Amino acid sequence: MTNVPRMAGVLAPVVTPFGADLAPDPERFVRQCRWLLSQNVGLAIFGTNSEANSLSVDEKIELIDRLVAAGLDPTRMMPGTGCCALTDSVRLTAHAVKVGCGGVLMLPPFYYKGVSDEGLFRSFAEVIERVGDARLRVYVYHIPPVSHVPITLKLMERLLDRYPAQVAGMKDSGGDWGNTKAFLDAFASAGFDVFVGSETYLLRNMRSGGAGCVSATANVNPGAIGRLYDTWRNEGADAQQGRLDAIRDVFQKFPMIPALKAAIAHHARDGGWATLRPPLVALTAAQASALTGKLEALGFTMPGLDPC
Amino acid sequence: MTNVPRMAGVLAPVVTPFGADLAPDPERFVRQCRWLLSQNVGLAIFGTNSEANSLSVDEKIELIDRLVAAGLDPTRMMPGTGCCALTDSVRLTAHAVKVGCGGVLMLPPFYYKGVSDEGLFRSFAEVIERVGDARLRVYVYHIPPVSHVPITLKLMERLLDRYPAQVAGMKDSGGDWGNTKAFLDAFASAGFDVFVGSETYLLRNMRSGGAGCVSATANVNPGAIGRLYDTWRNEGADAQQGRLDAIRDVFQKFPMIPALKAAIAHHARDGGWATLRPPLVALTAAQASALTGKLEALGFTMPGLDPC
Repeated sequence: MTNVPRMAGVLAPVVTPFGADLAPDPERFVRQCRWLLSQNVGLAIFGTNSEANSLSVDEKIELIDRLVAAGLDPTRMMPGTGCCALTDSVRLTAHAVKVGCGGVLMLPPFYYKGVSDEGLFRSFAEVIERVGDARLRVYVYHIPPVSHVPITLKLMERLLDRYPAQVAGMKDSGGDWGNTKAFLDAFASAGFDVFVGSETYLLRNMRSGGAGCVSATANVNPGAIGRLYDTWRNEGADAQQGRLDAIRDVFQKFPMIPALKAAIAHHARDGGWATLRPPLVALTAAQASALTGKLEALGFTMPGLDPC
Repeated sequence: MTNVPRMAGVLAPVVTPFGADLAPDPERFVRQCRWLLSQNVGLAIFGTNSEANSLSVDEKIELIDRLVAAGLDPTRMMPGTGCCALTDSVRLTAHAVKVGCGGVLMLPPFYYKGVSDEGLFRSFAEVIERVGDARLRVYVYHIPPVSHVPITLKLMERLLDRYPAQVAGMKDSGGDWGNTKAFLDAFASAGFDVFVGSETYLLRNMRSGGAGCVSATANVNPGAIGRLYDTWRNEGADAQQGRLDAIRDVFQKFPMIPALKAAIAHHARDGGWATLRPPLVALTAAQASALTGKLEALGFTMPGLDPC
């Protein structure tokens, strides 16, 4: 077994830039990822907020390769690699491991609903076995509001029992702290790393033995979220959490992914960032203006985000 | 505009056979499709019951090509080509058109939930425009219990208004006759072809101006379902519908896709047919035995299904 450092802290599910032809734009993507790393935020590329499921496997492999070729550190990358099709998940996961990614965030196959824990166990097991690489670290992705395929405690127990080295943790995007707490209580003391899916729960998660967060708004507010992670044991942490919540509240008044892109477009002075792939659509000009206005009222900035 | 004959009648969402290594088995697939055509049932390959979303695009293209190479009539094929990723949907749809498929059954992108009609319109429009072939016939796939992304009347109206030649019809697998009737009332008289997603509604659909059905159980009971379609105007049609319902009721007591495969395995004397790709799992031996027992009690047979 090789000695892979555990991933921890704050990661951004990096939003994916598209050109006018709706093709992914590797140059903008590399630049954004470099900026996020400079803010001490890791790269959960191909998450829900990345429109990852609107990309083909080939498009995702090309984007990973471009990041690595640009010299970005793959140990800071946790690409989403769980697809509907077993063969797609295997191919993408194997590629992520091959280039040295620190971990992968794995959705269950999400087309079929009401599937059994046995079927989900086999899905994850087949991917782990077929990738067959001791360096693989899987973070299981629980996001029932979108996937409609929840991950149960019993399933995780079985996966950990069978693959203790490969199953490294989870991301809980269910928005139910009680569920997060149940996973923390059950598994964290054994070294299982729980990332919450929103910085809303970051302080609670750290105080309960969690590992960090993978949050939409880490795309736009990375420095401040990273600071709370670094200083959560300090006095003033609750006030920091309150300020993060205020910023997040603004974004939550809009469709999240278009709002993240609108904010980046505004602060980077690069209108191309506002493009989304269908079925998602950009904010209207009025919405974008309302968003940036509310953010300015809170003194929100994106320091170091270079205009292009 | 070329003169493509409209698809009509009964189609099976053909179940996909897998080897012990979980790879699709083209030989069994060709044999099964040939048998279905001999029963006068069309080939809605890559439907929900085909475990299509557990297959990669490459695997689907290979299976279409094998059918065509084996001499099966592509005008009887309505492959499912709607994927989460725009580029996957375009690639698979273009391939289906290239080999001469009579139509394609198109899911909306189904990962993101609560998306707008504007976003869904753009999704379908981008695929139609990028495929850019006058031969393309799209049947829009409404299956909210699985996709959680419903197709509204307003969306369909807009698609028909913009692409009257390409948008040929729909499959309604919502299980709500009121919804089917609303689509029939709104669009059938203009030549829009509504297929119901279960033979349960076949007689009602035909009496209301529908085009046929694409039904799970057409995989196992094709002859009898096809007969009702051929003779729905005749006396005795209601009694025929009753007999179809009794057979379907048996299958519905079990997980449908595993039950279809178990029935084929039993009647073709070919245990390999029982294999499913995760996250789906085969019936237990006890379930399979209960299924075949109940079917025998109803005098169910699969005439002409060759043992291999």
